[in-house]
Amino acid sequence: MSIKTQTLAGFLFDYLYHKGVKHAFGIPGDFALPMFRALENSPIELFNLTHEPSVGFAADGYARVHGLGVACVTYCVGGLNMLNAVACAYAEKSPLLVISGGPSPNDRRVDGLIHHKVKTFDTQRRIFDEVTCASAVLLDPETAPGEIIRVVEEVLKQSRPGYIELPFDLVEAPVKPPVIRNQPAVESDREMLEEAIREAEAFINNAKKPVILAGVELHRYGLTDYASKIAQKFNIPIAADMLSKSTISETNPLYIGVYSGALSEEPCQTYVDESDCVIMLGTLVYDIFLGIGTAKLTRKRSMHITSEKCRIGMHAYEGVLFKDFLEGLAEANITQRAAFKNPNPVKEIVPLKEAENNDKLTVESMFRIFGLELPEGSTLVCDTGDALTGALSLRTTQRKNFLSDAYYLSMGFAVPAAIGVMAAKPEGRVFAIVGDGAFQMTGTELSTCARYKMAPIVIVINNDGYGTQRHILDGPFNNITMWDYTKIPELIRYGTSTRVSTKGEFDKALKEAIASSELSLIEVVVPRDDCSVPLKRLGEELGKIRDSEKKRA
Amino acid sequence: MSIKTQTLAGFLFDYLYHKGVKHAFGIPGDFALPMFRALENSPIELFNLTHEPSVGFAADGYARVHGLGVACVTYCVGGLNMLNAVACAYAEKSPLLVISGGPSPNDRRVDGLIHHKVKTFDTQRRIFDEVTCASAVLLDPETAPGEIIRVVEEVLKQSRPGYIELPFDLVEAPVKPPVIRNQPAVESDREMLEEAIREAEAFINNAKKPVILAGVELHRYGLTDYASKIAQKFNIPIAADMLSKSTISETNPLYIGVYSGALSEEPCQTYVDESDCVIMLGTLVYDIFLGIGTAKLTRKRSMHITSEKCRIGMHAYEGVLFKDFLEGLAEANITQRAAFKNPNPVKEIVPLKEAENNDKLTVESMFRIFGLELPEGSTLVCDTGDALTGALSLRTTQRKNFLSDAYYLSMGFAVPAAIGVMAAKPEGRVFAIVGDGAFQMTGTELSTCARYKMAPIVIVINNDGYGTQRHILDGPFNNITMWDYTKIPELIRYGTSTRVSTKGEFDKALKEAIASSELSLIEVVVPRDDCSVPLKRLGEELGKIRDSEKKRA
Repeated sequence: MSIKTQTLAGFLFDYLYHKGVKHAFGIPGDFALPMFRALENSPIELFNLTHEPSVGFAADGYARVHGLGVACVTYCVGGLNMLNAVACAYAEKSPLLVISGGPSPNDRRVDGLIHHKVKTFDTQRRIFDEVTCASAVLLDPETAPGEIIRVVEEVLKQSRPGYIELPFDLVEAPVKPPVIRNQPAVESDREMLEEAIREAEAFINNAKKPVILAGVELHRYGLTDYASKIAQKFNIPIAADMLSKSTISETNPLYIGVYSGALSEEPCQTYVDESDCVIMLGTLVYDIFLGIGTAKLTRKRSMHITSEKCRIGMHAYEGVLFKDFLEGLAEANITQRAAFKNPNPVKEIVPLKEAENNDKLTVESMFRIFGLELPEGSTLVCDTGDALTGALSLRTTQRKNFLSDAYYLSMGFAVPAAIGVMAAKPEGRVFAIVGDGAFQMTGTELSTCARYKMAPIVIVINNDGYGTQRHILDGPFNNITMWDYTKIPELIRYGTSTRVSTKGEFDKALKEAIASSELSLIEVVVPRDDCSVPLKRLGEELGKIRDSEKKRA
Repeated sequence: MSIKTQTLAGFLFDYLYHKGVKHAFGIPGDFALPMFRALENSPIELFNLTHEPSVGFAADGYARVHGLGVACVTYCVGGLNMLNAVACAYAEKSPLLVISGGPSPNDRRVDGLIHHKVKTFDTQRRIFDEVTCASAVLLDPETAPGEIIRVVEEVLKQSRPGYIELPFDLVEAPVKPPVIRNQPAVESDREMLEEAIREAEAFINNAKKPVILAGVELHRYGLTDYASKIAQKFNIPIAADMLSKSTISETNPLYIGVYSGALSEEPCQTYVDESDCVIMLGTLVYDIFLGIGTAKLTRKRSMHITSEKCRIGMHAYEGVLFKDFLEGLAEANITQRAAFKNPNPVKEIVPLKEAENNDKLTVESMFRIFGLELPEGSTLVCDTGDALTGALSLRTTQRKNFLSDAYYLSMGFAVPAAIGVMAAKPEGRVFAIVGDGAFQMTGTELSTCARYKMAPIVIVINNDGYGTQRHILDGPFNNITMWDYTKIPELIRYGTSTRVSTKGEFDKALKEAIASSELSLIEVVVPRDDCSVPLKRLGEELGKIRDSEKKRA
């Protein structure tokens, strides 16, 4: 890598460009203006958004698809307004670098009141320390390049967000080419690794019905090929979870669907729950993944290997690197299984019949029609709620074709994240599927599509309020104002829109949107009390658990 | 105060109601649903908004007008998304209480992954500790009532935000009536107080041209009457600053306008800069207040008394309470001044002439026409940029009739804060004045006006981008997509709108909006490079400073 630039911001952006960052996302403010000018002069292309929460989600979406995302904001009024999105990236292990403008080191010496300052000049950095894995305030041009490298390396290593604060008056400060120290690579504890592989090998060979759960870390660390290879070589079926959906190709003959307890498709749930050897590779194990207590995973019947842990049955192994384990397992002495009959293969979706055209749309039929029309190579970005759970049974054709914030579950993710995806891969169509409540949070960010001539297809599921919450505990607080979502293109002077409430109308609108090269917004009106199939199943299973608990009591 | 309710949330909301809270602002989420149901059953009325950043600004607006604001949100995805608004309230000393839903104490014992969790279960509380003066996570019903009282008392004492986290499964937990301990009131150090008053008295009596700067703390602590009394009794003129504008009635004959260095109206700036005794009462002294270095305030020629400090000339006095000082000064032996000739009285605004009707609007002429039409008792809520600086010379007729986040300067404040103001005082018209860039951040929050039948008049100043920043450092990053702002009423199915670009059109539109009882949005198109008079003056003065520095160099 050759760094020619001699200014601090020049070094920063050149370094990031060499690390693969081709695009950044941001909104300027006075403390950040010199940084934005430097960015303008760098090889990195800037996408200007309208509101900071969206900046974070867009850069996160880019990071999930491309590898390293960059969000540029101003001090406090910008950065703190983006915190939720950065917390989401932390929770879901997305490598998102925040670069914030900041006050001058000279001003920081005296503890005066400079506009935007909250408690102290360190407030923003202290807050970001809670949602990042590394941070640096670049107060000294002498040490700044080294600090930048440290933060970026940590972001890539942990696949978590990092924070860099660049004082406005040091943007053009001259810096020396940094001394890049070759740190010795971290290695696995060989003895532990061998023992872990040996136990895993025996565990799998003794199992009647092993299954791999391919977790999101496989994708984040670029290790998915190992998991595919292990599945293929030994003929072991493979499932995803909500957060890792599409990490493994969903048309792989060994792929049995998304597992999340009672939120799963039934054949996938049964297969995993009956398995005597669940091989969790890079999986985030959390409450929703466990179907709110409906999953039947036990530690004795599973192994769990991630960037942070290695557990085989009841034994934990320390110092075993994720990659080394995967490599070892792929080469282990595991007996190949007999031909596998997939209980949940890619299904032919029942085509839409003419007679159905006037049927009222439901979330279920909407996703059925969507599945029929979905063009190969499309990317789906799904928001929280039915937009996510309804999409679980859809099969995309390529890896990384499905994005959602399925663990952190922040509403308003989909529209801005879709912008990040479109920046990262201009080829292939991007669909944002979002509930009405979430759309009211960040939907006007489609304005940015107008600016950069992006043409997503946006499906707004209008069930007149916070639908998923209605199924948990209802009250007037779950109501929202009924917008006319079709007016968005007129507001932002870009794209087209339509409202549909029957199967035939949706089919027609979707076909037209796919045929068109414009931004298309489809408002899908569904009954107020409707919900997706997985949510219905979850409700039923939770009901059964309650009933049996009552009987026992 | 009698607390009858026996559940934790019942106690919380009853206690807040008795402290004067009649309205709360919020968005539910699953961890917060039981709390929202309890709120629904409480005497406090809930305003449901669309996006958490707006929840914070609305509750802050309510707090600035009414005294204590409450923002109810869910864990992390809600709370962290509101952080910037809470930071704003902290920076500008607004008593805003955040109540967040939270995970169960049972779940917190095991460090598992529960959706919405970031690093640890304490992440949100740790973050809020950076932008609040007190916090409590109510893990134990036994101690919870005492904790609630502690946080609320501190919020009121410091006039800063506080944070309470309420686990979803403890909402209905029974609680005992709390033991309310009568803590001895904090008192001034009498000796110090007397000496401070004595020195202040002599300072003022020896001065040729004293002037009072009435700061925002007077309003926050309900102490404005003392300042008015001191001014009146001794015939000392009185000025405000951007943040405290309208703390003192702007039609008071002693009132000389808003002081902010070169951002002031010229007669006010001259008066204060020439004063040999500037009496700053409750003033936040910050860079913009100082006109970015154009103010001529010195410590020798000023005194500065706030809730945190007491300085007379070069002498600091410890242990002097703000209220006691004001009380003492009002009764001090100060010579009454001769009749005061106001250099900047309420001016007759030049009426609009027929011949001007077709003139293109500028920020300056827009505010002139606005001043002509402004109905008595209206409240102005101004966003950052020209919306604020352009409004500085307008005189409102009652106290607390002007709101802006003039120190923290976060864009997107005005529309949601106006909603908080309308909740607090349904009488009198509320105007939100907001730039196009800021409107794109939080403008769709007008949706909430549709729900609660509020009828603000919203003026969107469309100068095609981040106008104020263009005057600092321009580049394509200051551009935004040109929306058709007049489409907002169609999007939210409520209110009317119009676009104007001449003086006559604006005059007509404003008159119609004032006559109507509907929400009215007026998009005011001004030239791209136009700016308000104060910003022009600031630019010129900064230019002069640079020129004289060059000459000296």
